Amino acid sequence: MLDEICGCPVYLKAECLQRTGSFKFRGAYNRLAAMSADERGRGIVAWSSGNHAQGVAAAARLLHVDASIVMPADAPRAKIDGTRRYGATIVFYDRETENREEIAYGLARERDAIVVPSFDDPYIIAGQGTLAAEVIEDLTGEANIPDCFLAPCGGGGLIAGCATIVSSKWKKTRIYSVEPEAFADTARSLAAGERLRNRKGITSVCDALLADEPGRLTFEVNRRLLAGGLAVSDQAAIAAVQFAFRHLKLVVEPSGAVALAAALQGLVPGKPRGIVIVLSGGNIDPVPYSKMVANA
Amino acid sequence: MLDEICGCPVYLKAECLQRTGSFKFRGAYNRLAAMSADERGRGIVAWSSGNHAQGVAAAARLLHVDASIVMPADAPRAKIDGTRRYGATIVFYDRETENREEIAYGLARERDAIVVPSFDDPYIIAGQGTLAAEVIEDLTGEANIPDCFLAPCGGGGLIAGCATIVSSKWKKTRIYSVEPEAFADTARSLAAGERLRNRKGITSVCDALLADEPGRLTFEVNRRLLAGGLAVSDQAAIAAVQFAFRHLKLVVEPSGAVALAAALQGLVPGKPRGIVIVLSGGNIDPVPYSKMVANA
Repeated sequence: MLDEICGCPVYLKAECLQRTGSFKFRGAYNRLAAMSADERGRGIVAWSSGNHAQGVAAAARLLHVDASIVMPADAPRAKIDGTRRYGATIVFYDRETENREEIAYGLARERDAIVVPSFDDPYIIAGQGTLAAEVIEDLTGEANIPDCFLAPCGGGGLIAGCATIVSSKWKKTRIYSVEPEAFADTARSLAAGERLRNRKGITSVCDALLADEPGRLTFEVNRRLLAGGLAVSDQAAIAAVQFAFRHLKLVVEPSGAVALAAALQGLVPGKPRGIVIVLSGGNIDPVPYSKMVANA
Repeated sequence: MLDEICGCPVYLKAECLQRTGSFKFRGAYNRLAAMSADERGRGIVAWSSGNHAQGVAAAARLLHVDASIVMPADAPRAKIDGTRRYGATIVFYDRETENREEIAYGLARERDAIVVPSFDDPYIIAGQGTLAAEVIEDLTGEANIPDCFLAPCGGGGLIAGCATIVSSKWKKTRIYSVEPEAFADTARSLAAGERLRNRKGITSVCDALLADEPGRLTFEVNRRLLAGGLAVSDQAAIAAVQFAFRHLKLVVEPSGAVALAAALQGLVPGKPRGIVIVLSGGNIDPVPYSKMVANA
């Protein structure tokens, strides 16, 4: 069905099926695994709306590292519960009035702990890229290498990691970041050639993609390797969540469905001959999901 | 999480991700592929509450065979739409007052077409068994072969096909059918040593498992190869659908979740050292799914 809609073979990388329900475990594990025994003993601090939180918490548990995570008080319940289940300590903050990075760095100073950023870190970026390494391995036998690769984009760590490996193996594949329209900082920054911030006071149903601006490191990678940035409306993201329910039998959160939304809406430039779509996560609360699905 | 709940490694075979959203494509394709060109030219007739319907319709389209499917008027919309999308002709009947087999055989006589039964056929049974062949292949590298294998059971075709291959490769693995409590004809028949019918006028949320009695062929296989039959309440099936939403990020219909429900409820006899669970399908309508998920 997707092939018919998109007019070419479509391949899905379903990271909602990944440990912790999103790709974030990859980068977090890679970062923690690279720490020395001394560093691990000091514990870690991270901030996250929920997917990185769970990734860090799960990796910390596996590696016996003490983890404190700064999360917005209005984060999805599923993400808070998930983070807590892995044994991390959660410190809540108010998204409107407090700065999560300040809180995190304050905690780290107090505890002599190590900050694990959610995207702007070479180990995190490389870890997220392992997803694309698997895609390339899985599609080795295919007659035609997909010429388009789409992934959701918040701070840009996932797409930067994927672009690094995809561009080195599939030289002709065009790589696009996909963002919610109101948070299309990477798309606008790529077009402008410099890092631009999102307006204040905006919101989106894509709670995992609400970054203020592209990361320093991630933008350096992305401006060299991406063909451009795409953006979709919240409505299109929800339609993609519904499509995934109805036809893919996968639970995908709106943030995780934006790349699928771009493909369903025919936003991929040119005439694609094959598209890889990353479904980056599936951590969504029962009530909002149930409302989205009821109208599928 | 499942390993923790069940106290041993658990492996899921997610047939909701199969073409047509359930395992039924396997048997249908195998049956149609075995037909001669002359037989295919005559067209086929089948009856089904929806998953076999879609499996037959999809296989018929691939093999250019004309297909008519007898479906209950109250079948889930998702299953009716799916069957229609593959190009099959649908003939509706009233589950209370009409007999679907009579209608199907009547149509077949009229059109000189071939009846494709939903479970009581060696090709169908063998086709469904390919699922277990994949499980065995996938787990070749595991240190310990799972000693329990659970699959949902309506007429018994899926479990008979799986049992045939599992018992030949994994000699010590105990194989269990899982049914809704009100339709536990296979469990009761296995215990009695003869085929018993379900009571009339009962119902279950597991719309794909409402068989009247075990098949003749399937029961012959199952009474030799199964360790027994398990049964779960509708409530337990729904709890398993919710678990699959929340933790597996998979859309599973209640019928497809009964084996998972049995494992979650600790119904597997003995002390399992490893469990394979078949999630047999994910074709559920938006409104009932949304109601189930809202309380997850």
